[in-house]
Amino acid sequence: MKQVEGSKRLRAREAGIVLGTMASGPTNTIVDVPGVKVGHATLIRGSGKLVRGVGPVRTGVTAILPHGGNIFANKVPAAAEVFNGFGKTIGLVQLAELGEIETPILLTNTLNVGRVADALVGYMLEQNPAIGVTTGTVNPLVCECNDGYLNDIGGRHVGEQEVREALNSASDAGVAEGNIGAGTGMQAYGFAGGIGTASRRLSAEDGGYTLGALVLANFGMRRDLLIAGVPVGLELMRADQPAPEKEKRERGSVIVVLATDTPLDARQLGRLTRRVPLGLARTGTHGGHGSGDLAIAFSTAAHIPHAATPLVRTVQVFNEQHPALDRLFAAVVEATEEAVINALCQARPLDGRDGHFAEALPLAKTRAVLQRYGI
Amino acid sequence: MKQVEGSKRLRAREAGIVLGTMASGPTNTIVDVPGVKVGHATLIRGSGKLVRGVGPVRTGVTAILPHGGNIFANKVPAAAEVFNGFGKTIGLVQLAELGEIETPILLTNTLNVGRVADALVGYMLEQNPAIGVTTGTVNPLVCECNDGYLNDIGGRHVGEQEVREALNSASDAGVAEGNIGAGTGMQAYGFAGGIGTASRRLSAEDGGYTLGALVLANFGMRRDLLIAGVPVGLELMRADQPAPEKEKRERGSVIVVLATDTPLDARQLGRLTRRVPLGLARTGTHGGHGSGDLAIAFSTAAHIPHAATPLVRTVQVFNEQHPALDRLFAAVVEATEEAVINALCQARPLDGRDGHFAEALPLAKTRAVLQRYGI
Amino acid sequence: MKQVEGSKRLRAREAGIVLGTMASGPTNTIVDVPGVKVGHATLIRGSGKLVRGVGPVRTGVTAILPHGGNIFANKVPAAAEVFNGFGKTIGLVQLAELGEIETPILLTNTLNVGRVADALVGYMLEQNPAIGVTTGTVNPLVCECNDGYLNDIGGRHVGEQEVREALNSASDAGVAEGNIGAGTGMQAYGFAGGIGTASRRLSAEDGGYTLGALVLANFGMRRDLLIAGVPVGLELMRADQPAPEKEKRERGSVIVVLATDTPLDARQLGRLTRRVPLGLARTGTHGGHGSGDLAIAFSTAAHIPHAATPLVRTVQVFNEQHPALDRLFAAVVEATEEAVINALCQARPLDGRDGHFAEALPLAKTRAVLQRYGI
Amino acid sequence: MKQVEGSKRLRAREAGIVLGTMASGPTNTIVDVPGVKVGHATLIRGSGKLVRGVGPVRTGVTAILPHGGNIFANKVPAAAEVFNGFGKTIGLVQLAELGEIETPILLTNTLNVGRVADALVGYMLEQNPAIGVTTGTVNPLVCECNDGYLNDIGGRHVGEQEVREALNSASDAGVAEGNIGAGTGMQAYGFAGGIGTASRRLSAEDGGYTLGALVLANFGMRRDLLIAGVPVGLELMRADQPAPEKEKRERGSVIVVLATDTPLDARQLGRLTRRVPLGLARTGTHGGHGSGDLAIAFSTAAHIPHAATPLVRTVQVFNEQHPALDRLFAAVVEATEEAVINALCQARPLDGRDGHFAEALPLAKTRAVLQRYGI
Repeated sequence: MKQVEGSKRLRAREAGIVLGTMASGPTNTIVDVPGVKVGHATLIRGSGKLVRGVGPVRTGVTAILPHGGNIFANKVPAAAEVFNGFGKTIGLVQLAELGEIETPILLTNTLNVGRVADALVGYMLEQNPAIGVTTGTVNPLVCECNDGYLNDIGGRHVGEQEVREALNSASDAGVAEGNIGAGTGMQAYGFAGGIGTASRRLSAEDGGYTLGALVLANFGMRRDLLIAGVPVGLELMRADQPAPEKEKRERGSVIVVLATDTPLDARQLGRLTRRVPLGLARTGTHGGHGSGDLAIAFSTAAHIPHAATPLVRTVQVFNEQHPALDRLFAAVVEATEEAVINALCQARPLDGRDGHFAEALPLAKTRAVLQRYGI
Repeated sequence: MKQVEGSKRLRAREAGIVLGTMASGPTNTIVDVPGVKVGHATLIRGSGKLVRGVGPVRTGVTAILPHGGNIFANKVPAAAEVFNGFGKTIGLVQLAELGEIETPILLTNTLNVGRVADALVGYMLEQNPAIGVTTGTVNPLVCECNDGYLNDIGGRHVGEQEVREALNSASDAGVAEGNIGAGTGMQAYGFAGGIGTASRRLSAEDGGYTLGALVLANFGMRRDLLIAGVPVGLELMRADQPAPEKEKRERGSVIVVLATDTPLDARQLGRLTRRVPLGLARTGTHGGHGSGDLAIAFSTAAHIPHAATPLVRTVQVFNEQHPALDRLFAAVVEATEEAVINALCQARPLDGRDGHFAEALPLAKTRAVLQRYGI
Repeated sequence: MKQVEGSKRLRAREAGIVLGTMASGPTNTIVDVPGVKVGHATLIRGSGKLVRGVGPVRTGVTAILPHGGNIFANKVPAAAEVFNGFGKTIGLVQLAELGEIETPILLTNTLNVGRVADALVGYMLEQNPAIGVTTGTVNPLVCECNDGYLNDIGGRHVGEQEVREALNSASDAGVAEGNIGAGTGMQAYGFAGGIGTASRRLSAEDGGYTLGALVLANFGMRRDLLIAGVPVGLELMRADQPAPEKEKRERGSVIVVLATDTPLDARQLGRLTRRVPLGLARTGTHGGHGSGDLAIAFSTAAHIPHAATPLVRTVQVFNEQHPALDRLFAAVVEATEEAVINALCQARPLDGRDGHFAEALPLAKTRAVLQRYGI
Repeated sequence: MKQVEGSKRLRAREAGIVLGTMASGPTNTIVDVPGVKVGHATLIRGSGKLVRGVGPVRTGVTAILPHGGNIFANKVPAAAEVFNGFGKTIGLVQLAELGEIETPILLTNTLNVGRVADALVGYMLEQNPAIGVTTGTVNPLVCECNDGYLNDIGGRHVGEQEVREALNSASDAGVAEGNIGAGTGMQAYGFAGGIGTASRRLSAEDGGYTLGALVLANFGMRRDLLIAGVPVGLELMRADQPAPEKEKRERGSVIVVLATDTPLDARQLGRLTRRVPLGLARTGTHGGHGSGDLAIAFSTAAHIPHAATPLVRTVQVFNEQHPALDRLFAAVVEATEEAVINALCQARPLDGRDGHFAEALPLAKTRAVLQRYGI
């Protein structure tokens, strides 16, 4: 395995790219939402010609936990929205019906969803031995993007061990970005992509709530890339970075996970997810046919106990007539946009199967283009 | 106008037809749910050949009010589900987004929806002069069925006066059923149909809540009618009541309104609406292509203020893990089924345009059929 | 393993139970639709106390193939509808977006979906080596019910071998019903349940098309069971067959697969799926909270090539204004109802883990009840 | 009535603003799609203090016709998507079920939907006397935005006469833009808004199809306006054009109508509508709570006869695997974006009720800002 070194990678803000006007949280990541944890397991193994089941392997799994406790016993309100359903997610049927999630959210590659879902079931059974015996079943939630350009995706290399590693390493001390975890083999806008994250915080008068986004970015063609409204993709292509051959057809996907401590119910969280495409659009995408694009949002402000009693619970709900809601919507758009750009800024160059190669977004050149555009 | 007199009309239970096993509320109608009111305005005018804009007129409007106060100022949680969207309802887009209703629900005939919606807007503006000036707009909710077999539907005879009459006469003292209000020109299963209602009450251990259903029944073909599982339609046809000529093709519709004082949010109310077809199916329908079938459910347990403050409200929500939920679902099925049969049992024979005629369900013969089937 | 022998099992019609009025196809099963094949793999192993991962095992997998060729290369139009999303199906996101299926449909138990989906991916990769290399990914379609009352569901005993067995044994020579394949550990209405199937045929003037239904029946409580409109469940309970202890709460599910050779596009197939609950309701269900209920419909009348050319294809589409559509809807209702009753009539008594036991529907007593009701 | 004169208004391209990279049709409007016609009726009457029912009146109605024939007799495939359902559209229920439209699409103000729908029903009855007598009913399609900042919206001044004027004046000779027709009283991004349109054409190898968009733009806050990625709104505010007082809260809406001669069925058209928010996002919106945002798309490539025979029709359908689909998606994004900017560039300054005033986007200053950003 040859991992080509790029120049030092930075987050967008470190690279001088400021997106949006709202304040971010302290780390500008999804773990700014209290209780949320993120963990990765990364597989980089082998190089050269593809041999199915052997490699090269460029893949992984990423876990997002809404809280540090037993999520099956204390579920959280959630919603999902599919923008382009060319995707193989498991778990959305029950999420839509009950408006809650009861497992961590796992991200991985497309053909690995079955194995990862199975490993997640195993993990949940261990934590909750009553499942399948005295208390019904559990709904694993696993989303995916296609890393087959670099990775032996047919080999389905992510198994129980990697899932445990991602879950057990999950932490609220920050989020590693770029081609790591589920993001390892991903590309966005013709560059190395993968995991990116950002956060926004509402003013005290709007409740002081935090909204975080984490993306698995594997979508878009180079010629479409916009950063801060500037056609960076076209400008780089006109200079010396023509689009890679792969660009003939988009076969990407993007998964966006939103977390917030705002007291929102499932219907209200659904309204957040429907603003995600507005953030993605600011990075230039037209929403390709072959791209499986969806968003999941959850709130950490309430726990929904698995227990059958009491009959009625008391909960807090956000007043949608309050203008703070519009700020929350803007937070979704800004955090989504910045999370995608962070993925690009953080991902390193990486080779893969059959001589395929993912360039990193050239940060210095990008800055130069932005400056030419007065930014 | 010639209104043929039938034999005395009864409610299903008075006629010895018992449907389901749960207890009903005191009046076995939707107004058993505290606060709910129903009012009708009925138009029966002229006879003979159809002259568009003149008559004969066999139509009306029915109003269901979730509470007796200002519904725009104090909205209620609500949901709707469309089973077969061959219908012209107005108001469902905003209902789906916000999970609430902010006007009374009006039922009328298909081509009259525009005029009735306009009259409802006028009524709401009068009650709430700030609408359109300082506080946005209002979302009128009007559902419909096609009464064109008896009525000059193209004449659109229901106007502001009838809408006011239905709203102003709304009462919680009981509900008139059969061919009255919006039900005037309707038919179901080849018989005179229209308005029917029923209710169910949960046990004290399940919270003691009430669930009421009101239907506007204008669907089904005679040969398909089931009562208490018995093929009453076929049996009556085999005897001396062949299906009317109109049965060549179903062009009906059915609207079902559910009310409850159970503390349910919009998502949970949506789960109630999706049990409505199970109740309709027990009366024999196959869900005809040309039938606009939908259900709306609202809860009276919470009011959602129009005001933009405070930022967060405290509400009660039902625990879906509690087994009482299954009883509530069963209540929906039973109340829906009984409401349809009540409409048939209560509707009187009625002539209409061009010699068209709606027979009433023959109660004595129906009872005889049921007895032959051991019921 | 002790498999208790019941009396001889029959299909509903053989037992004198006639449901509906339309003609069935020659075998009255889903394989009456030309090209459709069904295969099962059944696992019955061990008895006594539950040891997770060991047994007792009462489970399996069932495969439905729309045609005998390469389904990835020649996809078929399809649609799905979720009635109660307490379920863990994989594959519906892409089905909804593209309106097609590109793999066989597999049915299994709830916690086994991950492993079965993974095995299906492996099978598809073998048939189509270009997947994940030069032509994107594949969308496995796996549905499930919870067989945990009898089976060591946490053990996830269905693996690659069983999936291959079901796929390779698939045949159009008839369909085995009852507790077999995915139906092995299932119960419906408090009796042994599982796989059931039925078909209906339209008249020559309506195109002579066939509609077949296959159900995986694992839903309903004994007290709710209706057969031909008769409350058979209550009557049996009043006699000498009280409901089993398990009935405290419904934790079932039902999956319904519809196949037809009618030339329908995805939207039109969706209209078929929305009639499925009308058929289920005729067997008595109220749609329990914990039941994952969904339907999938596909048409064999067109193949959608995976190839990117030509730009435009010519297809046949059914005229929804033609009254044959209402007969097709009735066929869905009738075939669904009869398929459920066939599952009950065909399933044999079966013991399971921890002394749990599924009685078979007593056919002679059932017939006696029906006769008392004049049927 | 005082209509303040602005400087000469131009279309975006005339003002030197080029959006996107694809070729447009000959007039760069929705009527580039062969057969499509657009007509307006505009009401500007009175000035000064609001007197409900009297004025000032700043409103109107716009009609989009898919073809010049009888649309009820020859329907067209269509789909709709609601992004934010704070809206009062009528007609979407049946559109979703049947995937077709059977009337012209009318746009007007929010509280006028009832009257306009009623007028449209009257028009359809005149053209098709069998409606409501021998052939069922008709589904009027009317969308709306809130023009209450300038207009006496509660007065509901658009009636039968204006609807006829819009329908009868509809033409394929070009489309008047800005504050005209339904756009008369509308504002977007804190400037006078209303009607805008644009088109894109695919290359011959992609079929040479045309895609047109028409927007009714009444959404967005000044501080959010982006043109060609440049924060024009913020820059103008920093100069000498602070946001109007109204900007405290967004109460807008945006309706987007897409037309194409590409042979697409309803499901495929739905995929087009889901790209519309990507185009809107490029103009800066975060999707405000109070904004009713939806898109409707139709294809002129097929007519769906109202007749019940024959049983099966032959139609052409687009191959979604062909890469031309991605170009069609990009066309939606580009045409939507440019249509919004055209509305802003074309709308003139207009006063309204109670001294309210809508400034026009200052074209010279806008150009200056863009140049500072290198565009």
